[in-house]
Amino acid sequence: MGLQGIRALSSKLAAQLDEELMSTGAFSIDQLMELAGLSVAQAIYRQYPPKQDGSSKVLVLVGPGNNGGDGLVASRHLKLWGYDPVVYYPKKSSRIDLYGRLVTQLKDMDVPEIDSVEEAKRLIKGPTLLELIVDSLFGFSFKPPVRAPFDDLLRFLSENHGDIAPVVSVDIPSGWDVDSGPLEYDIKPSMLISLTAPKPCAAKFASEGGAHYLGGRFISPRLAEKYNISDITSLYKKDNLVVKL
Amino acid sequence: MGLQGIRALSSKLAAQLDEELMSTGAFSIDQLMELAGLSVAQAIYRQYPPKQDGSSKVLVLVGPGNNGGDGLVASRHLKLWGYDPVVYYPKKSSRIDLYGRLVTQLKDMDVPEIDSVEEAKRLIKGPTLLELIVDSLFGFSFKPPVRAPFDDLLRFLSENHGDIAPVVSVDIPSGWDVDSGPLEYDIKPSMLISLTAPKPCAAKFASEGGAHYLGGRFISPRLAEKYNISDITSLYKKDNLVVKL
Repeated sequence: MGLQGIRALSSKLAAQLDEELMSTGAFSIDQLMELAGLSVAQAIYRQYPPKQDGSSKVLVLVGPGNNGGDGLVASRHLKLWGYDPVVYYPKKSSRIDLYGRLVTQLKDMDVPEIDSVEEAKRLIKGPTLLELIVDSLFGFSFKPPVRAPFDDLLRFLSENHGDIAPVVSVDIPSGWDVDSGPLEYDIKPSMLISLTAPKPCAAKFASEGGAHYLGGRFISPRLAEKYNISDITSLYKKDNLVVKL
Repeated sequence: MGLQGIRALSSKLAAQLDEELMSTGAFSIDQLMELAGLSVAQAIYRQYPPKQDGSSKVLVLVGPGNNGGDGLVASRHLKLWGYDPVVYYPKKSSRIDLYGRLVTQLKDMDVPEIDSVEEAKRLIKGPTLLELIVDSLFGFSFKPPVRAPFDDLLRFLSENHGDIAPVVSVDIPSGWDVDSGPLEYDIKPSMLISLTAPKPCAAKFASEGGAHYLGGRFISPRLAEKYNISDITSLYKKDNLVVKL
């Protein structure tokens, strides 16, 4: 199905909902990030299951905010499920405690981290074949311009589209305006995982036929109603943490 | 399959592993409890799926420690998936922040809380038919004696076994000695969800033919090897958070 008749959550409302989840909703950032990252990993597993021999190399691009944290959590679950993730996390979050812990968890799982954008670009263009590139660079609070080294990276991904592994974007395709869509760079993801509810730019993604999933199943019926997204949150089936839209 | 040849984790080693997960493993209690409680809820969904009309009433008995926290988290997910949970949580944890938030999350989902052991007993024997009783009273750090009001509750569950809804125990059947099995009370659960690895008393449960699940899929291969539970943690399939043993 497409996004016809389904409401999206503007960048402004998404920020408000997030804030409300943690204030009156009483969720901790640890909880929300764990559930969001887990759903990202499960959506990836459904769409791109790993090879049995553990050789499915996934490059996870991690930004400086919560979107990046979701990517760190997803990397850990992917590793436990048989993928071979590699993390590029050049700008550390200011939430040192939380993000430091997420990174330590990955180290304990032997998930390697690469250090430079040059190394990331080398991985993306091979000769080691990547199965997937996970884009957890920017989320719903993204505002242009894109700063270094992410400008270089997004340009590289955009220019090499079609010639590199499929890109899976978390919540929004990084570099896109949350509400209106592509700006200077267009990384053309093959898959988008909307968290809690699609953002307006997801309609543009969906119209191009990519695989669109919803994750982040933790919104109470009361909040869903308040934000007018009950039609979306009611799409989940059984105990699934993700649903293909 | 049974537990033949599978190592169990003694109460002492389980406490040590838990401590190590949070120190060198760098997990927060919020993360671990969310993943553990989520796996409890998913195991329940597999074994006792809810009726389609939302009428599957589940009484969740919540103890004062981490086992209780797992029950609070599980209640929230069960509610989102179509069950009708009711929580009995008489002795609040000393971790006021974390547990207070878990309780607020349930309130926001309209999960009712009952206040007295008499009310819990009325529900258990009640004219309202319960589908399930979730026992998240005591976990691997349990040491007798059982104190009020839990003594009354465990006696009631034990005496009415066979005449009440199935009991699902989280990690250990409450009232049992973690390593050796039944003591003064035996609530005879129909289902046991071992977290991270079975505790020694799970062998006694498994020998009686109950449904035995494993959840809490967050142990790194390195930790699993150190605690000699790799044979257990390798039983998970695909991206599943639980496995039936």
